[in-house]
Amino acid sequence: MSEQRKISQKLKGLCVSPQDIIDRCAGQITAKLNQGLKKHYKEVLNVSSADFHTMGLKPITFFRQVLATCFYPSLLNDESLPLDARQRAERILGNCDGGSIGSYNAVGGIKEIQSSICKFITKRDGVIPDPDNIYITSGSQMSLIMVLKLLIQSEGSLKTGVLTPVPSHSTFNMAVAAQGGLVVPYYLCEEQGWAVQIEELCRALHMARGRCNPTVLYVINPGSPTGHVQSKDSIAEVIRFAAEEKLFLMVDEVHQDNVYGKGIEFYSYRRVLSEIGLPYSSSVELASINSVSKSVMGECGLRGGYLELVNLDPLVIPHIYTFFCTIPSGPLSGQIALDVMVDPPQPTQPSYELYTQEIQFIRHTISNNAQKTLDVLSCLPGISCQPVNGGSFAFPRLHLSKSAIKHAKEKQLEPDLLYCLRLLEDEGLRVGAGCEDGQKEGTYHIRICLAVPEEIMKDVLQRLKSFHLRFIEEFPLS
Amino acid sequence: MSEQRKISQKLKGLCVSPQDIIDRCAGQITAKLNQGLKKHYKEVLNVSSADFHTMGLKPITFFRQVLATCFYPSLLNDESLPLDARQRAERILGNCDGGSIGSYNAVGGIKEIQSSICKFITKRDGVIPDPDNIYITSGSQMSLIMVLKLLIQSEGSLKTGVLTPVPSHSTFNMAVAAQGGLVVPYYLCEEQGWAVQIEELCRALHMARGRCNPTVLYVINPGSPTGHVQSKDSIAEVIRFAAEEKLFLMVDEVHQDNVYGKGIEFYSYRRVLSEIGLPYSSSVELASINSVSKSVMGECGLRGGYLELVNLDPLVIPHIYTFFCTIPSGPLSGQIALDVMVDPPQPTQPSYELYTQEIQFIRHTISNNAQKTLDVLSCLPGISCQPVNGGSFAFPRLHLSKSAIKHAKEKQLEPDLLYCLRLLEDEGLRVGAGCEDGQKEGTYHIRICLAVPEEIMKDVLQRLKSFHLRFIEEFPLS
Repeated sequence: MSEQRKISQKLKGLCVSPQDIIDRCAGQITAKLNQGLKKHYKEVLNVSSADFHTMGLKPITFFRQVLATCFYPSLLNDESLPLDARQRAERILGNCDGGSIGSYNAVGGIKEIQSSICKFITKRDGVIPDPDNIYITSGSQMSLIMVLKLLIQSEGSLKTGVLTPVPSHSTFNMAVAAQGGLVVPYYLCEEQGWAVQIEELCRALHMARGRCNPTVLYVINPGSPTGHVQSKDSIAEVIRFAAEEKLFLMVDEVHQDNVYGKGIEFYSYRRVLSEIGLPYSSSVELASINSVSKSVMGECGLRGGYLELVNLDPLVIPHIYTFFCTIPSGPLSGQIALDVMVDPPQPTQPSYELYTQEIQFIRHTISNNAQKTLDVLSCLPGISCQPVNGGSFAFPRLHLSKSAIKHAKEKQLEPDLLYCLRLLEDEGLRVGAGCEDGQKEGTYHIRICLAVPEEIMKDVLQRLKSFHLRFIEEFPLS
Repeated sequence: MSEQRKISQKLKGLCVSPQDIIDRCAGQITAKLNQGLKKHYKEVLNVSSADFHTMGLKPITFFRQVLATCFYPSLLNDESLPLDARQRAERILGNCDGGSIGSYNAVGGIKEIQSSICKFITKRDGVIPDPDNIYITSGSQMSLIMVLKLLIQSEGSLKTGVLTPVPSHSTFNMAVAAQGGLVVPYYLCEEQGWAVQIEELCRALHMARGRCNPTVLYVINPGSPTGHVQSKDSIAEVIRFAAEEKLFLMVDEVHQDNVYGKGIEFYSYRRVLSEIGLPYSSSVELASINSVSKSVMGECGLRGGYLELVNLDPLVIPHIYTFFCTIPSGPLSGQIALDVMVDPPQPTQPSYELYTQEIQFIRHTISNNAQKTLDVLSCLPGISCQPVNGGSFAFPRLHLSKSAIKHAKEKQLEPDLLYCLRLLEDEGLRVGAGCEDGQKEGTYHIRICLAVPEEIMKDVLQRLKSFHLRFIEEFPLS
């Protein structure tokens, strides 16, 4: 594409992110270390994104046994693999055309896996979903993009507005822009453990009206990178608000199986919507999104997720089906992982014990890491962190001195980005900068992934502590 | 989404396709057969789409061994698997963060697989591509969508026009519409073996100017569903035309390893562009697309493909990178399949013999099926077929009588759709209707997949022949 041809307007909105700046810097340090440069750390630790296996957590054996057998059916007769893994693979292959996962499959995914997802939702929420409203995709990002595509109007003088929590991951904002929509930020209340507040939703909505046509409310629960988990009451409030304001609820619930706060339980929007009763339960439009990447098995590379659409006009359903025909269906690897995620080994089956052990181990690891992080941070000056009840991140706040902020501005960097770059350079620790995710003006944060082995977390916290104390010494808190 | 909310304009353009009508009918017949209905056929044979494994062709063993080992690395020590498959898996795992294919991977794909693709292109075309211009995606459909997204302008009063061959697969037209572009049809010349004619491109382009802003020329070579393969000269002509008219060349070359016409060789646009010399070789913008679904291994479910971008403005490249950040990268299963496709086992390696046998077997099968199809059709009245030199389809023309056409119109069906529905009902054979792919007005075609086991092809041709002769008897040719 030549400059003459002009870059599509959609592209121009995309610019180099703080993440790119830090990644580039991390790449340079790693290259220097590999060339023999001596630092007091041996390697860069990257805890900026939740990439379980990269950081050393192990894949769940049962998943991988089922996948390997599906790919290479000769293993169906390999008695070194447990019987239930082979039986599961046999069942999945039986549902693939020609008995091969190399076949195309139906739009929205393999029917039997859609049914397994329905059973999972029934068990979780006590509702009976229609399998035709389940769409298997190549992951939550693709689910979000498809829902945005459905909802964002390209005609009319006003852009479609999407109410979006701050903080949240920057990829979502990019996706809204790429589809021609407008992000309408609403701020989570950090002081109240990153609560979703109705008055703030009202403020954001009313500020947006006139500037755009806000019709979509995006919620992330369990929160990411904030780690909050909404209560049943909070969810009910949001549902009533969406109903009153005729907003489409787009709910990212990909961290649902990763909730560990004491006494904290995950409630799906789907469940609260059904329990809240009429007229809401039959009228509020909802897209609920789940994935295998962010579940505790952390299978980011397999690319599997699904979305359930609730209360959509029956007249619209055939159009949605046709719309999904325009994209490739999710890869079989992700579909198989989904099948295992929603229908894990049962107590009578040979893989149950190992599967349960492995899952529990990862859950405990994340939960322990969250607790240790809070413990360490609570002893440090100039940094504070809200309780982390779920998800893969902690998102502590930096209380920076005026001198630190002035220094950053002189370097034309966001203050938390400067902090991250210095932390990376001084200690080889790569965390995320709050400015990537968005934050209330004048506040600064860092993002730390908790889904890493405990011995690495110890190292992470040690590096963070050493650096932070030096940074505070260099730029004393007033 | 309620009707009040309005379906996005993009969606409204999508409507029930002839394919849906035939699929529904095939589903009903299958259900009746399963309920015990007696027909003179036992099952519906579906040769409307190229889905190798569904139709009984077998996956390539080496592929599946590498994939299984990547998914379940315990197999690295399983000596019942050949050493080169395990070594390949080990190398791929070594290039995944944390040694797990469950990790996220770089935008555009795993660097080492991008490099393997570059070597493949060098071997094929004698050029040295920049790995940064290779983007691994979840398949050719996603590659096409991404290029369309880059090229289709959403602003301005005139839509971006995309010159598109007729016939071609309807999913492409849907993707152009979904991105807000306008399909500008150009007709392949059936009488000359579905040749791409420059005068026809000119006609289409000049007719389109004013109605839209035509900036993209889409070419499929080897042709699908037409089975033609462009000569070097024909490609050079198209390149010069694109240069003169400042069109971006979007070339779908997914059938490149499936060329079998006697004396026919595949030339890539990339190669001809480099051989044609300056100023073309450094100026014509090109996106070249390849995939594992349509190669002879036919791995449709793994979702792997790549695109190479050539001669794009260096200023635009970083934007493209950022743009690809907004979609999930291709699944690892597809990336692994790509790696094997572009770098198959070598003669010194243990898997070479079996791999070569299996690939040759599929190639011969398709080639023999093409020949048999032409032989059978040439003996039938009222049907004719151009030579089929590559790809997975034959696209014969039906010469229907006025009475057959009148009968179809009375039933409010396209004549070839009527033919297909009758063929399905009478003989349990599901072929594609030409009206799905587009065709010159007043001409009618059917689409037959050749990538099926030879014994099934025999059955397919027998059913087609029986039906066709009866149909001709019912609606005699004048």
